[in-house]
Amino acid sequence: MAARKLRLHIENSRRKNPIFHTLPGHWQAACRRHKALARHIGAVSFGWDGDILESVLPQTELVIGVPARRDGLAQRAPNLRWLHSTSAGIDAALPLDWLPRGVVFTNNSGAHGHKAEQYMTMAYPLLNARLPAIIANQQARRWEALFSPSLAGKTAVVVGLGDLGGAAARAAKKNGLNVIGVRRSAQKHRHADRVVTYKQLDRVLPQADFVVLAVPLTSETRNLLDGRRLDLLKPAAFVINIARGPVLDQDALAQRLRRGRLAGALLDVVEPEPLPADAPLWTTPNLLITPHVSCDDGEHYIDISLDLWFENLGLMLAGKRMKRRINPGLGY
Amino acid sequence: MAARKLRLHIENSRRKNPIFHTLPGHWQAACRRHKALARHIGAVSFGWDGDILESVLPQTELVIGVPARRDGLAQRAPNLRWLHSTSAGIDAALPLDWLPRGVVFTNNSGAHGHKAEQYMTMAYPLLNARLPAIIANQQARRWEALFSPSLAGKTAVVVGLGDLGGAAARAAKKNGLNVIGVRRSAQKHRHADRVVTYKQLDRVLPQADFVVLAVPLTSETRNLLDGRRLDLLKPAAFVINIARGPVLDQDALAQRLRRGRLAGALLDVVEPEPLPADAPLWTTPNLLITPHVSCDDGEHYIDISLDLWFENLGLMLAGKRMKRRINPGLGY
Repeated sequence: MAARKLRLHIENSRRKNPIFHTLPGHWQAACRRHKALARHIGAVSFGWDGDILESVLPQTELVIGVPARRDGLAQRAPNLRWLHSTSAGIDAALPLDWLPRGVVFTNNSGAHGHKAEQYMTMAYPLLNARLPAIIANQQARRWEALFSPSLAGKTAVVVGLGDLGGAAARAAKKNGLNVIGVRRSAQKHRHADRVVTYKQLDRVLPQADFVVLAVPLTSETRNLLDGRRLDLLKPAAFVINIARGPVLDQDALAQRLRRGRLAGALLDVVEPEPLPADAPLWTTPNLLITPHVSCDDGEHYIDISLDLWFENLGLMLAGKRMKRRINPGLGY
Repeated sequence: MAARKLRLHIENSRRKNPIFHTLPGHWQAACRRHKALARHIGAVSFGWDGDILESVLPQTELVIGVPARRDGLAQRAPNLRWLHSTSAGIDAALPLDWLPRGVVFTNNSGAHGHKAEQYMTMAYPLLNARLPAIIANQQARRWEALFSPSLAGKTAVVVGLGDLGGAAARAAKKNGLNVIGVRRSAQKHRHADRVVTYKQLDRVLPQADFVVLAVPLTSETRNLLDGRRLDLLKPAAFVINIARGPVLDQDALAQRLRRGRLAGALLDVVEPEPLPADAPLWTTPNLLITPHVSCDDGEHYIDISLDLWFENLGLMLAGKRMKRRINPGLGY
């Protein structure tokens, strides 16, 4: 006798970019890639911004996509076992006081590394080659031979060594950089020449030619790279943020870029997003802004995400510890 | 009894960027790195734009830097054995009808590969990530989430597999690309998955996600990527030129970029250079221009060049075949 099938609800939001919408076609293709596991799933519903949420939650065990309304989930979804976020960063859902006891909450860490690596493979030589200044010259129709030294042998301090930080470290090694990783423990990392803890951050910042922010946004990491720490950097250093806007004091950064106190920066995340048209950040010299696109696969984001989800489904069904679980105490 | 020492003249030009000036400090440092070989060099003179050229040429065996005036060299420099160009591209000195018989003419190929590789390591993900459009959005203070697919598995057609093309192929492999190299012979290359000859260029262009121009400028390569060949490319393809401006029909490229017939381009070389302020190329959509800086080390260009020169000096003194000799028939 087969075990009872699990009911799954997939919650989408029209406020998100279409590349993050999990559609029936994605689901069916993933089921074909994971046939044996897919047999354990029964009814699947697709909802948009809560439209059918209350009617399906009572009988649903699995939810993909964090609902906007999260209060009283224990009562609204008494059978819920596993809630999965299709983002890696779950800072928008913090604090996790709404998470019912016994419900596993996972994120989408692992879906971003390959694109993050490609972005970071570009980021180091782009800043080293003075592209922001060259771009400003192109806008001014000015031909000025801005040469640059070799990138090899320079030092990247990569703050955070999760999916994104690991990708930043791999990309740095590909570019011949020396990598100092910074994380909670000084545990070794295969793509870092050296790993230190956050307590030693101030001590390694003066060595950085590049600082890469790749930490989750939590109450501990908010404003991590503030004005004081920016002043520990060499004037020739570059700053890269692929984490979340508020882990960096972007006004302090902009001020230093305007004064020539830092050499340049590449920000894929800012505060707020979208950045309003009148934000002075847009025209800060030697600053390049990309619109929060560094780490998301524009073609296969959902396919990759569902593969990671099915991997976890297999672990759950086997009674094993699932991956990418959020630790409510750490907030990531 | 020691052999007579060789006299060397180093010819500089103030019209060149200071990173290309060989100064006494560079020479002395190189002599310290190559002590045994340096003993064979006697008097060394440093000239600027021909100022002392006629007074030193009669007794000089070795010249670094191609003089602006090259007529009658056999009479003006009867003892000349070896002339070395501090550039890799010697197209400005073509045709080589001025080169006296028996004088070895070498170029500086090999001094550019490491920087070219860094530039190309950036170039592929930069174009794939739609940076030119994202940069235009930053100028317009517009936040628009332009996502991009993964770069891995795409195809680069690298035209020319010398110092620059080899670097472009290495950078492509680092980025997970499939590489089709194009050169005079179909001889294998360690960083190309496949090598074809120029005769097959038209057949491989439709497979390209990236076309990289890395050929010397000769009468054969002038206008190599013309409008007809650009029309063989996919509309989603990108064009990169790190060779010389005239190997590409840049007006045909600009026209196709304006129509959206090609996805984007990165040009480090254009025609003419410097590009005048009123050139329409500056504002072509999805086109990024860098000012002929892709392949030159802004810090150690001359140090690297002198190391290559000393390597050849050793070969010459040993009576061996020198490297990087220009073939007057091929023009590179």
